[in-house]
Amino acid sequence: MHFTSEHRLDDAVLEREFTLGEIPGILWTPGSASSSAPAPLILLGPPPLGLRKAYPRLVARARHAAADGFATATIELPGSGDRPRLPAAEQAHADLRRAMAAGEPVTDEIIDALILPLVDKAVPEWQAALDALLSLPEIGGPVGYSGGVISIGTRLAVVEPRISAAVLFAGSFVPRAIIEEARRVTIPLHVLLQWDDEGNDRQTALDLFDAFGSKEKTLHANMGGHTGVPQFAGDAAAQFFTRHLK
Amino acid sequence: MHFTSEHRLDDAVLEREFTLGEIPGILWTPGSASSSAPAPLILLGPPPLGLRKAYPRLVARARHAAADGFATATIELPGSGDRPRLPAAEQAHADLRRAMAAGEPVTDEIIDALILPLVDKAVPEWQAALDALLSLPEIGGPVGYSGGVISIGTRLAVVEPRISAAVLFAGSFVPRAIIEEARRVTIPLHVLLQWDDEGNDRQTALDLFDAFGSKEKTLHANMGGHTGVPQFAGDAAAQFFTRHLK
Repeated sequence: MHFTSEHRLDDAVLEREFTLGEIPGILWTPGSASSSAPAPLILLGPPPLGLRKAYPRLVARARHAAADGFATATIELPGSGDRPRLPAAEQAHADLRRAMAAGEPVTDEIIDALILPLVDKAVPEWQAALDALLSLPEIGGPVGYSGGVISIGTRLAVVEPRISAAVLFAGSFVPRAIIEEARRVTIPLHVLLQWDDEGNDRQTALDLFDAFGSKEKTLHANMGGHTGVPQFAGDAAAQFFTRHLK
Repeated sequence: MHFTSEHRLDDAVLEREFTLGEIPGILWTPGSASSSAPAPLILLGPPPLGLRKAYPRLVARARHAAADGFATATIELPGSGDRPRLPAAEQAHADLRRAMAAGEPVTDEIIDALILPLVDKAVPEWQAALDALLSLPEIGGPVGYSGGVISIGTRLAVVEPRISAAVLFAGSFVPRAIIEEARRVTIPLHVLLQWDDEGNDRQTALDLFDAFGSKEKTLHANMGGHTGVPQFAGDAAAQFFTRHLK
């Protein structure tokens, strides 16, 4: 892990860009430059837009988390931003656009090809990022995961015991295989669903929520479309992390 | 409205029993005996158990609300507690028990007979209670409605313009006619659903949530069975009222 830039957003948050091998990432830590105690960490799963496009939303979440005493970090997804494309996913994207333009149903084959290679490649990268982040003196446990592609968050919750609680955003296609994996999740979950999300299958999101094996799981469904998560829903997600990571 | 008893629960809450015609009720007001400013009001819809059996849960909600600066009030439902039975509902209850014991589906006819006469009779009573409560100097607007039989809350939200926001508990049978009425609801709603509620049809609850016409509506689904609403879900409902009634 190499830090490539560092600047203070204000007196409360230090932002540092880093690379982890070929993967770019950003770390935000709370407190003043010299005197911060180790902070619990929230991994911010980005949307598959690339970190540059997602930056305004990510930094808003990072500032909110820092105010609550959390460090946050994110890394570029495979195939996003300046990272090399994933050929299988590119083909699936083209098939998806073709199906939607023709008014045809999006098949399980397209969804699997779009999501599963991404999950398979991204999850070990997030685990490597976690190794590196937890070796920093300014980061302590416990660790939460928030947002991003819900299939990645689901797989991480299954395979990564260092993640203690997760906020998941049900806003992307979900392969049936991931719904089966979800039964093995046991950590506390807070799932956000935009009820009238035009690009998301509501029933699949409800099936996924139903499948999670966690004894504590909460679904918050709101109005406002895919990008219209209300401020109070973000606040509730923050309270969830404060309840579980502090 | 005649007050029949009065005692302080502690320095923060005054509890008064009253009758409104033949209907018993309870009013809880925050603040010290002499010096309370008019408080916004939350109507506490009781479960159809009778106020006496429901009292421990109601008073817990009343104390929580008083701490947030709200007065709360409830009245006995038609056919509950010491009030005269509703013959049609009694028959429907018997039919319901028979159907469930035989493992048969609960028909729309049974649900209609169980719920619709109760709604028709209860809603004007709650409106009369609201008239009386709002005439008290210690009660100010705005008014919220919380809990109880969701079909009563839905009808009240449609017909009673003095109710500004509602927390509804999706934990009882819902006639199809009420789902149609729900499309006319426009006030902000916060709907609680116990995901694995053994006595509640989840799909009907989701259909009802979908039907509400409100631009701001939130569904909070949690684990824990019918009576196991988690503490944090109660806190979130309280925050909803603070957002909308203060």
